[in-house]
Amino acid sequence: MQDLTLVMAQLDPMVGDIAGNTAAAIEAVREARIEHGADVVVFSELFLTGYPPEDLLLREAMESRLQDALAEMAQKIDRIAPQTLVIIGYPGVRDGRRHNLAGVLLGGEWRGEYAKQALPNYQVFDEDRYFEPGHEPLIVEHKGAKLGILICEDLWDGAPVRQSAEAGADILVTLNASPFHLDKPAERERLFAERAREVEKPLVYVNAIGGQDELVFDGGSLVLVATGEVAVRAPFWQVGLMPVRFSRDAMGWEPQEGEREPLLGAEENLYCALVTGLRDYVNKSGFKGVVMGLSGGIDSSLSLAIAVDALGPDRVHAVMMPYHYTAEISQADAAEQARMLGVGYEVMPIAPMVEAFTATLAESFSGLAADTTEENLQSRVRGVLLMAISNKKGLMVQTTGNKSEMAVGYATLYGDMVGGYNALKDVYKTWVYRLANWRNAQEPAIPERVISRPPSAELAPDQQDSDSLPGYDVLDAILERYIEGDMSAEAIIEAGFERDDVYQVVKLVDRNEYKRRQAPVGVRVTLRGFGRDRRYPIVNGWKPGN
Amino acid sequence: MQDLTLVMAQLDPMVGDIAGNTAAAIEAVREARIEHGADVVVFSELFLTGYPPEDLLLREAMESRLQDALAEMAQKIDRIAPQTLVIIGYPGVRDGRRHNLAGVLLGGEWRGEYAKQALPNYQVFDEDRYFEPGHEPLIVEHKGAKLGILICEDLWDGAPVRQSAEAGADILVTLNASPFHLDKPAERERLFAERAREVEKPLVYVNAIGGQDELVFDGGSLVLVATGEVAVRAPFWQVGLMPVRFSRDAMGWEPQEGEREPLLGAEENLYCALVTGLRDYVNKSGFKGVVMGLSGGIDSSLSLAIAVDALGPDRVHAVMMPYHYTAEISQADAAEQARMLGVGYEVMPIAPMVEAFTATLAESFSGLAADTTEENLQSRVRGVLLMAISNKKGLMVQTTGNKSEMAVGYATLYGDMVGGYNALKDVYKTWVYRLANWRNAQEPAIPERVISRPPSAELAPDQQDSDSLPGYDVLDAILERYIEGDMSAEAIIEAGFERDDVYQVVKLVDRNEYKRRQAPVGVRVTLRGFGRDRRYPIVNGWKPGN
Repeated sequence: MQDLTLVMAQLDPMVGDIAGNTAAAIEAVREARIEHGADVVVFSELFLTGYPPEDLLLREAMESRLQDALAEMAQKIDRIAPQTLVIIGYPGVRDGRRHNLAGVLLGGEWRGEYAKQALPNYQVFDEDRYFEPGHEPLIVEHKGAKLGILICEDLWDGAPVRQSAEAGADILVTLNASPFHLDKPAERERLFAERAREVEKPLVYVNAIGGQDELVFDGGSLVLVATGEVAVRAPFWQVGLMPVRFSRDAMGWEPQEGEREPLLGAEENLYCALVTGLRDYVNKSGFKGVVMGLSGGIDSSLSLAIAVDALGPDRVHAVMMPYHYTAEISQADAAEQARMLGVGYEVMPIAPMVEAFTATLAESFSGLAADTTEENLQSRVRGVLLMAISNKKGLMVQTTGNKSEMAVGYATLYGDMVGGYNALKDVYKTWVYRLANWRNAQEPAIPERVISRPPSAELAPDQQDSDSLPGYDVLDAILERYIEGDMSAEAIIEAGFERDDVYQVVKLVDRNEYKRRQAPVGVRVTLRGFGRDRRYPIVNGWKPGN
Repeated sequence: MQDLTLVMAQLDPMVGDIAGNTAAAIEAVREARIEHGADVVVFSELFLTGYPPEDLLLREAMESRLQDALAEMAQKIDRIAPQTLVIIGYPGVRDGRRHNLAGVLLGGEWRGEYAKQALPNYQVFDEDRYFEPGHEPLIVEHKGAKLGILICEDLWDGAPVRQSAEAGADILVTLNASPFHLDKPAERERLFAERAREVEKPLVYVNAIGGQDELVFDGGSLVLVATGEVAVRAPFWQVGLMPVRFSRDAMGWEPQEGEREPLLGAEENLYCALVTGLRDYVNKSGFKGVVMGLSGGIDSSLSLAIAVDALGPDRVHAVMMPYHYTAEISQADAAEQARMLGVGYEVMPIAPMVEAFTATLAESFSGLAADTTEENLQSRVRGVLLMAISNKKGLMVQTTGNKSEMAVGYATLYGDMVGGYNALKDVYKTWVYRLANWRNAQEPAIPERVISRPPSAELAPDQQDSDSLPGYDVLDAILERYIEGDMSAEAIIEAGFERDDVYQVVKLVDRNEYKRRQAPVGVRVTLRGFGRDRRYPIVNGWKPGN
């Protein structure tokens, strides 16, 4: 009986850092050989540049840096693991065409390159901007096993899978950079099982880990048997090397069953995505930590818990900035949470600044009634304070507005929207509550009163969010249909919502594109985040209706 | 002898406003028939949705709205101009595929549709995200002339032009939405002449007019004879209907010479682009006017002139916000310019707010040295004042940072970067001077001292821009090579620049992507604006070098 040990390298490359990623790849091969006796090591898609490299691909120097990296890998891995077949993703220009490639290295030589055939160019993906599709399968034989190499979208498309099987693949080996969204892990397993069964071959799926701007990769690399069952499932949200042993019998090559890490529940998965996105943004950008405004409300409270889970309490600093409309309990709850989590905490009342602005503007505003201008002013004073602390102390401001607010513009541009990163940007308010409850069920991190009291921006006397918006359950249900579903106002009304609510909400969404365009990036966790995912004109004459 | 009157409808559709654009098209056909006896009216690319409609194309209701529009056009134009052939651009889903179409209407019936074959998916273009390419030519015969219909990129690509000629076209009729950049008008005429000569057919090029977010369309619709000379050139930067008469002789169909508006000089063209971009953004968004900070420096001074030229002095309001470091001459020059241009003008000293912030932050900052935090604070106080005026009075804040500053991050996020639109966003500082001089040569609009004194941000005592940056001639030359040219640091040094300057500049460009990501949109006038044109990761491990 023949066998083959394949190691899935589920790692977190840094976009643009070709030298660093190359060094990490070499080290992973060394470890895979020594620890697991790897015959084959498989990395994720575009590992050497990280994913997505975006317009870095257009830089003149990109190709020569990659050539240097490939030469270095060949030379060093030949010394470390001359008999290990390495399959790794990188971009490359071949015959004047740029491709998304998977290269195959053995014994100091690059033995072949596969060019991705199915290029995603929807949602957050722009691969047609950079790449031309390949047309040929690549089968590499090693220790008697024929590996059919594929890249990410090839698997979703399907045709390249059949082509690879027809070309003689014993095992389908796929390199992926598959961004997380809430339903993705289960969706993947259903689809991959179908693909494996369709061609009756086992399938290896290696995914990346980590956050890159708005994207987050969840890992969960997989090996499926030819009948579609999961033989091995790597952990989610953790880097690591995951070995799997294949053996050949009369039926062909099949993987042995190995570790099967559990699929996570929705709340846990989502929470891990937010923690990972924030942590990688802060660490990869080189910030010492984060500073954030703590209002006593649920968004900042959940954001603080996420920041502490991502970075540890010593790297998180909270500031309460009360004004006349800030409730006593808001101040008490903020202080209480800061104490619970052990983060740095300061109180800076904003009245002196608000009064100075009001006095300066008095002449210009004379005769004009108070309106949201005065509310925005409070929020902007807080933004300026946070940015000053950020600038002085090298801490990134963490923004805390949720997706429901970003959608309808219930946020102040240059006020509570200031900051470098927003963990909650793609999390609807109803999910903010679910996450807060889930997090507290693990270990208390958020004072219960923060969760139970009615939400308020506290920018005017006795203000509640429900004064100007439908309740969040209704709001979020309308938003999901409008944003994720691209449904018209009338179609949403037909689905059972109040006409006034629907028109109010869809008008607000359209009108506030300008705010979102200047918002910080944040983790995308739905099928339609406010980022690369949803490209809307700011100047927009579309009117709601049918 | 046969003849044919073709009218080029060089108009300014509003993105998303299908009903409004449809009404404008119907009215244009009526006018073209009555005023010019049009046999054929040609509109620009995607006229019914405006260009680019972006993700509005994904809305469920898009197709039914377009079907309604097509039905309305057929019905109304049949009454107004039953013998006029109308050729107009719109998107449409046919057999499950979305195409970028040109439809042909005559006598109340849609006679044919051409699907664009060459889809641009580079620079600012994302057409592969939305459209699938057509493969067939479309030739429409009207009054004995065979019109070969093409759309924009088809012309740049070339193959569809040859295909159309081979299919029997007498006249190539092209619908375009061709965004302006500085060298584009001359580039177009060179290319179109080549295409006309290649197939020995006359060529009609109809372009759109107006600003849409970061894009601006310059018009300049053209008719070329088969030997490539320009027979008719419509005005730049103006909407209008431009007739051209074709006649047939033994050699085939040829246009008669008509009006040939001049090509514009670089400064005039660029200035018009900035005025058009700003005007359309403000007007199409429904703002009453603009408010802006006037510092006595050249960027805000040129921006004020642009705003007045775009909107008239009554819709422009300027605010001088002096602090201890604001020179007397800055205040004098700002007041002088406001007087010259007749705009509203206020002075709001910022010391009270700066002092209130400083006192509030004193404890938190105790023991820490002064740094750029204090400079940013001044800038942010000004931002908050402008936003308060904006909110209270319904005026959009016009931002004034130029491309050199945006590139190296010489600007304060949430400070001088606040605002809805930035006319100078894609204008290098050296071009700011060229434009200021050109504008003053037409009619004085900028005090000469503003142009002649050394530039300073005036955020610290005796500060000059040259304290922290290379001179703007050197800076801009490095930036052009790095941004437009995608050259490496070492390649720029080889081209003759100082090592220290080059490394300082390229590091600043890379490090400041986060600021640009939150910057307001502005008019794109180069081949690589900071918008859809240049898609960079914020978290980025790319290191400058070879």
